[in-house]
Amino acid sequence: MLQYFMPTRVIMGEDSIKKNPSVFSEMGKKALIVTGKSSAKKNGSLDDVIEVLSKNGQSWSIYDKVMSNPTVECVYEGASHARAEEVDYVIGIGGGSPMDAAKAIAMLACQDITEDQLFSGNYGKEVLPMIFVPTTAGTGSEVTSASVLTHHKQKTKIGISSPVLFPDVAFLDAKYMDDLPRDVTVNTVIDALSHSVEGMLSVRANPLTDALASVSIRMIASCFEALKKFDLSRKDRENLLYASTLAGMVISSTGTVAVHAMGYSLTYFKNMDHGRANGVLLAEFLRFIEEHLPDKVEQILSYMGMKNVDEFKDLLDELLGLKEEITLDEINMYTEITMPKHNIKNTIVEPKKEDIFNIYKSSLC
Amino acid sequence: MLQYFMPTRVIMGEDSIKKNPSVFSEMGKKALIVTGKSSAKKNGSLDDVIEVLSKNGQSWSIYDKVMSNPTVECVYEGASHARAEEVDYVIGIGGGSPMDAAKAIAMLACQDITEDQLFSGNYGKEVLPMIFVPTTAGTGSEVTSASVLTHHKQKTKIGISSPVLFPDVAFLDAKYMDDLPRDVTVNTVIDALSHSVEGMLSVRANPLTDALASVSIRMIASCFEALKKFDLSRKDRENLLYASTLAGMVISSTGTVAVHAMGYSLTYFKNMDHGRANGVLLAEFLRFIEEHLPDKVEQILSYMGMKNVDEFKDLLDELLGLKEEITLDEINMYTEITMPKHNIKNTIVEPKKEDIFNIYKSSLC
Repeated sequence: MLQYFMPTRVIMGEDSIKKNPSVFSEMGKKALIVTGKSSAKKNGSLDDVIEVLSKNGQSWSIYDKVMSNPTVECVYEGASHARAEEVDYVIGIGGGSPMDAAKAIAMLACQDITEDQLFSGNYGKEVLPMIFVPTTAGTGSEVTSASVLTHHKQKTKIGISSPVLFPDVAFLDAKYMDDLPRDVTVNTVIDALSHSVEGMLSVRANPLTDALASVSIRMIASCFEALKKFDLSRKDRENLLYASTLAGMVISSTGTVAVHAMGYSLTYFKNMDHGRANGVLLAEFLRFIEEHLPDKVEQILSYMGMKNVDEFKDLLDELLGLKEEITLDEINMYTEITMPKHNIKNTIVEPKKEDIFNIYKSSLC
Repeated sequence: MLQYFMPTRVIMGEDSIKKNPSVFSEMGKKALIVTGKSSAKKNGSLDDVIEVLSKNGQSWSIYDKVMSNPTVECVYEGASHARAEEVDYVIGIGGGSPMDAAKAIAMLACQDITEDQLFSGNYGKEVLPMIFVPTTAGTGSEVTSASVLTHHKQKTKIGISSPVLFPDVAFLDAKYMDDLPRDVTVNTVIDALSHSVEGMLSVRANPLTDALASVSIRMIASCFEALKKFDLSRKDRENLLYASTLAGMVISSTGTVAVHAMGYSLTYFKNMDHGRANGVLLAEFLRFIEEHLPDKVEQILSYMGMKNVDEFKDLLDELLGLKEEITLDEINMYTEITMPKHNIKNTIVEPKKEDIFNIYKSSLC
């Protein structure tokens, strides 16, 4: 089924949280704030939320133990916290990790799902209402129904997905990104770019998602020069944030493809940041697609004002810097882990085992 | 509040109705099909829907009395029909008129709202589920929460709007538009173009709606030459359909502005088609905005590959042909009727009475 669906209400602009206190009061009396250890405290987003809750006379409890690439254990702990505190709704603040964790927590707080069932895809409809505040411009999690978790038993990252996991409201305010350091900025931008590019190369790509992807890619490309110099204006930060949300609106309907499937192993085994992992693989993946569908790749490159894949790879190399070392044995293992992933079958040209191996190899060796 | 919200599930592609029978069976046992007198019967859309309902073993009743610019009386009659037939959901098939009527019928079938209360903006949440099948590429009603009705007591068209009026599902299949005649095609395309342009010139315009509008305008502009020759391929028809839905996604968050407010009088008093009425006014409206915000208009024109408003006006003149005659007395009356409309205040540069008068005059005299 070719479809587009994204029911989250997106509220935008500087100080949009403080300007819209009723959005919080309508959700219930007590909130569980799900976030990471420190960034939401530093960038002002947590303060803004707490100021609104205080003025509204609402109460809250904070669960701030979400680590990068949150684990299954983490979301069960967060859900226990939500139940113990008898919260009415969840506020997720942060990058992809706190937001993805917040979705799983909102569901596990209402439904009795064992760890064995967690990735079954069979969920009930009960979920706590969710308000999300992204503080990086990359994941798009604020407008998707997916929660990607680290699954140590399977030694990889794996997603749970359900229409009930769409947040109710997302607040987009680029001021929280003003002081994001270079590596986080670059990695998250590349994650967003990868979402739009992968969305266009999904078997579920359709005219509406392609339209969103085209403008998302153009907006990100308009910031390439500023990114290289790491001299980003607030306007650039806004472009990157909205482009990231548009990219999330793309993958909420298309899903991601082989790049994300492959990247998960680089993150799990080499501790490579999620966006960086996608960026390292993206150019060689496009070269693989180009062999089969040259027009499609030419179109994507044209949105970035680029002539060929080499030019794109040069840009990514400049942004990502020195790459991690990797052995052929490791690549063999990652290929085995990657092949069964559903994102592989979701790719417009389904890569074979040797294709996956070769993309890893030409990207990293 | 700057926001984007559009919760309708959009299903796309050739034969998408027949390929997705479960979408209908999940809605309930019995449908009310709301449509106009003839077009849905001619273009195959009604046959496709009935084939699916038959195969699903579902029943239906047809209300096919929706006229162009549907009246308040019409939607009350349709709602009585829905109550008498005890239907579970509504299927709206056609252009903007049947879809707008279907929304009001779906609400009036569940809520006791008097005619005096109908335009109050205070509605309950009860509404019959809705599946919409647009058979023109213009209105965008399949993805908006507005229903525009003809109000004889107020001698104008007026909208009712509520989040509960978003359809649950919209099916987009350009094959139903293959045989649309030239005038309907041109008028509806210009309506869609007007939605995207007006959306960018709304006080509620925001980065996400601007992004959707930009790609919608580009897609429509890519068909300008084919429209002039009236030599449209299926691919063109698809571009126009998706552009129209994107434009609907824009106005679902931004609303329309002065052009629509002004066009309603041309439709009510001169019986001018809705899209044509907008098209007649659009260039001179842009010229008015240009005096205050030249960069904004330049940006819109650039999406169409145009240098100035004159070039745009020439295109519209060529597409719309000879214009209706109108007197200054008529313009005075239309100006009086237009000024209190909420779309006037929704315009990024709020036009004064003399501005409205002048736009009418330079457009039509």
